[in-house]
Amino acid sequence: MKQSMMLIPTLRETPSDADIKSHQLLLRAGFIRQNASGVYSYLPLAKKVLQKIETIVREEMERAGAVELLMPALQQAELWQESGRWYTYGSELMRLNDRHDRKFALGATHEEVITSLVRDEVKSYKRLPLSLYQIQNKFRDEKRPRFGLLRGREFIMKDAYSFHASQESLDEVYEKMFQAYSNIFSRCGLNFRAVIADSGAMGGKDTHEFMVLSDVGEDTIAYSDESNYAANIEMAPVVATYHKSEEDLVSLEKVETVGKKSIQEVSEYLNVDETKCLKSLLFKVDEKYVLVVVRGDHEVNDVKLKNYYDAGSVELASPEETKLVLGCSIGSIGPVATKSEEVEVIADQAVSSIINGVCGANEEDFHFTGVNPGRDFSVEQFLDLRFIQEGDPSPDGIGKIVFAKGIEVGHVFKLGTRYSEAMNATFLDENGRSQPMIMGCYGIGVSRTLAAVAEQFNDENGLIWPTNLSPYEAHVIPINAKKEDQRLLADRIYSLLQENNISVLYDDRDERPGVKFADSDLMGLPVRITVGKKASEDIVEIKIRKTGETLEVNFEKLVETISTFVVK
Amino acid sequence: MKQSMMLIPTLRETPSDADIKSHQLLLRAGFIRQNASGVYSYLPLAKKVLQKIETIVREEMERAGAVELLMPALQQAELWQESGRWYTYGSELMRLNDRHDRKFALGATHEEVITSLVRDEVKSYKRLPLSLYQIQNKFRDEKRPRFGLLRGREFIMKDAYSFHASQESLDEVYEKMFQAYSNIFSRCGLNFRAVIADSGAMGGKDTHEFMVLSDVGEDTIAYSDESNYAANIEMAPVVATYHKSEEDLVSLEKVETVGKKSIQEVSEYLNVDETKCLKSLLFKVDEKYVLVVVRGDHEVNDVKLKNYYDAGSVELASPEETKLVLGCSIGSIGPVATKSEEVEVIADQAVSSIINGVCGANEEDFHFTGVNPGRDFSVEQFLDLRFIQEGDPSPDGIGKIVFAKGIEVGHVFKLGTRYSEAMNATFLDENGRSQPMIMGCYGIGVSRTLAAVAEQFNDENGLIWPTNLSPYEAHVIPINAKKEDQRLLADRIYSLLQENNISVLYDDRDERPGVKFADSDLMGLPVRITVGKKASEDIVEIKIRKTGETLEVNFEKLVETISTFVVK
Repeated sequence: MKQSMMLIPTLRETPSDADIKSHQLLLRAGFIRQNASGVYSYLPLAKKVLQKIETIVREEMERAGAVELLMPALQQAELWQESGRWYTYGSELMRLNDRHDRKFALGATHEEVITSLVRDEVKSYKRLPLSLYQIQNKFRDEKRPRFGLLRGREFIMKDAYSFHASQESLDEVYEKMFQAYSNIFSRCGLNFRAVIADSGAMGGKDTHEFMVLSDVGEDTIAYSDESNYAANIEMAPVVATYHKSEEDLVSLEKVETVGKKSIQEVSEYLNVDETKCLKSLLFKVDEKYVLVVVRGDHEVNDVKLKNYYDAGSVELASPEETKLVLGCSIGSIGPVATKSEEVEVIADQAVSSIINGVCGANEEDFHFTGVNPGRDFSVEQFLDLRFIQEGDPSPDGIGKIVFAKGIEVGHVFKLGTRYSEAMNATFLDENGRSQPMIMGCYGIGVSRTLAAVAEQFNDENGLIWPTNLSPYEAHVIPINAKKEDQRLLADRIYSLLQENNISVLYDDRDERPGVKFADSDLMGLPVRITVGKKASEDIVEIKIRKTGETLEVNFEKLVETISTFVVK
Repeated sequence: MKQSMMLIPTLRETPSDADIKSHQLLLRAGFIRQNASGVYSYLPLAKKVLQKIETIVREEMERAGAVELLMPALQQAELWQESGRWYTYGSELMRLNDRHDRKFALGATHEEVITSLVRDEVKSYKRLPLSLYQIQNKFRDEKRPRFGLLRGREFIMKDAYSFHASQESLDEVYEKMFQAYSNIFSRCGLNFRAVIADSGAMGGKDTHEFMVLSDVGEDTIAYSDESNYAANIEMAPVVATYHKSEEDLVSLEKVETVGKKSIQEVSEYLNVDETKCLKSLLFKVDEKYVLVVVRGDHEVNDVKLKNYYDAGSVELASPEETKLVLGCSIGSIGPVATKSEEVEVIADQAVSSIINGVCGANEEDFHFTGVNPGRDFSVEQFLDLRFIQEGDPSPDGIGKIVFAKGIEVGHVFKLGTRYSEAMNATFLDENGRSQPMIMGCYGIGVSRTLAAVAEQFNDENGLIWPTNLSPYEAHVIPINAKKEDQRLLADRIYSLLQENNISVLYDDRDERPGVKFADSDLMGLPVRITVGKKASEDIVEIKIRKTGETLEVNFEKLVETISTFVVK
């Protein structure tokens, strides 16, 4: 493609409203433009990348046995009312009325539409399983659209839905989808993790998020430095074993600790390691008060607490509630003086290994030393109640835990019968009995994946596209197109590469070399071919965007040389 | 693809709410389902056809030098206010508010968005011309959505826009787009005409509609039976030459014609050919009254009248106005008794050849006979004022005019500076002067094209897809998959065809043969391969959907034989 025919509006300056690299560079390199907050136009270069991502997605979806269809963005309110989401989705769901004042939602997702479609057309177990997907614009009225394509209000998504007669069938398709997602993000060249993300059951395998590792991610991931294990930080179980020291038990003593409240203050003041301190927090679990004790250097994971009690809500008791229940301020709580008949005491398993510890005395300015669980206070249950930490053993037993931030680019989820029951999507099983279909859903943020790639592959000069996704594989730049030998050689190279199925962008603009090179670096095509002084000798310079490596190549060797860099 | 994995919900009965063939068959063959009035889901088979159409569109757009981008459906009201269309588009434009109560339109078309984009990024003639296109869902709240995909409220469109520094450049790109459109619809196998459709200037070349010939079309096309000439009926100029008979002039006489009003009644009563009658109509052209005279067998074309006067409005005078101006009822009007000082008289050129004609006497129950233009009444101007008729010579001088109904599937239009002036999209020309960009726009109804193909290619048993667009090229059907030899051979054929790049749908369902065959006919894939009794001999039956032709083929010869029917 000749660059003069394209719309690639590069910018020298970094736009002031773009906070993160991908947003800045996609704007500067002329890939996107904002139309409204969270609403973008994908300019020609971005459209090419999107199409490459979509092709990969389609290939892997088909391989996983999913079939493509296309559902509408306009969705009747009645469907959303059936599922109940009309009332619960809130203002993120964009709504409108048609000319007859009928209510519609703009598709934020398509569970309702697909469930009603399959409900109406599929009646027998013989037609199941069924996996359907689409690639389509979605609409979500985000409260704070930001980070460019990472959190927009209109964005491109691949959403897939599967329908099953049995849980085993769902499990099987879920596995295939999981594999497809791994393939897709691998083929996009991304450094990602499939992250356990079920908030329903601890360590469950019922939902995974595919997270691209990036400092601008909004979630923290705990992953193994040696295996594939990865989980959202609140989902990771702790399987650490704790060493119990051999020292002799000392007697419990109440000591004055005027003004010392935090673990750090107390540990320094009493010259005791934080690992010997008992961090005690009073929670309100639904309507009941629970004192949770963890080691001083650990943090309570309230998701685990919530799951243990199967609770509707879990929150820290307020200062007033604490005063009322334990008679002291939050900084002075401890299990020793807590009457277990009134408040249930549970503790993280690490606490059971503490010898001669320190805890609050439920009295302002006093702590206990020489605290020993069992002897000085009783615990209802020792459990895994803390957040995993860097350095902890990976829950799968392989390697140690490392933390990273992640951008969610995909999500696979076992929906079960949430929608089929609400919307009466049933089938007749082999015995002629009516059953709700069991469903799975599987999403990929296609436009977000583009941004995630841009976020992961760039340097100070611009974007660096992986060959698989690059809008073009090669960039041909005559230094001075007014010189006939340069122009003619550039023309020949343009034809040559096209004939050899190497996609090429040809900078035929009348611009200074510096402008062309800066634009080229910004765009980040894998191979640049500069046609300059040695044009008359048929010699050009190749520069590899990723490594900066340059070499002189003769026209005769050009295809061969480039092919080694743009392996498909 | 195995049919058991697809969602192809065929119907035996014709849905009662579908009036036309394409709508009925796309529903019955399991290609589409309605979600709301004018809103459809494209099921897997339809999605495949759409993708084939889109591929053809993309290839031809690229060949015409257009570059693909993707703009959002959510469009800020401010843009539509700038162009003025926020106020003029009416309730066809779907509108909504976001959570901050900002107003948005759902893209019915993208002139505003693209003009603002190009305005912001292109400043110099050096960056022009520029042709950009997208394929995207559009939203129009049609008053009466109907005919399935032919007139929907959410539909898929390819829209292209070009920007130019000169009229010549627009003309050049318009030509390329015209050619691209001809290629696209030809490759879709459609019987279509590129129809002159400018309503601004008579016979102008500034806009063409691409019309698929079909009885369910909403427009009438006049086209040549020998050349490419075609025009919307109101746009076709009449270039007929009229024979003036040699007979002697007779004298003007007023005759009684009690109760005879219409041309037919008068002509029969007076025993005069309709071609000798003068049909006279009083029009109100803006604020002025004009008597228009055409031959009795002709019809006044008010577009021509409007263009001649360059009028804002043209309408027939009411009975009251006619009484007031001419002193008689509408059925008695004629030019002889009309005082030309008060009412301008113009006539179609055919009238100048009438000798001894008949016309109303501006008096109830009386007509004149022996009327001769010039002698008995004067005419301000003889013009082309009538609708073209079947049998008239084609305006390009080649062949005769035939009428047909047409479905508009494409439209190319020279917009000029309509949007660039309203939205201040200017560039600096070679002399550094600011000029409004000159624009063209070019649309194709992608989902409508699918329906038009379905409308043009079907028979009593179902759809008949042209090979270029068919969801799959071959349909493999084992008559009884429980018989091992049939199943094994069908499996082998399925693999064989895939290996040879012949796309294939494999009916692996446990259904009776009659059901499979009926479904297969409904779907309309080009070649059906039936694996039956002779499976053990490696012999199958091939049936060509289009012709009904059947032949027995040995497995060895299968690819070769099929290839002759599915030439790509």
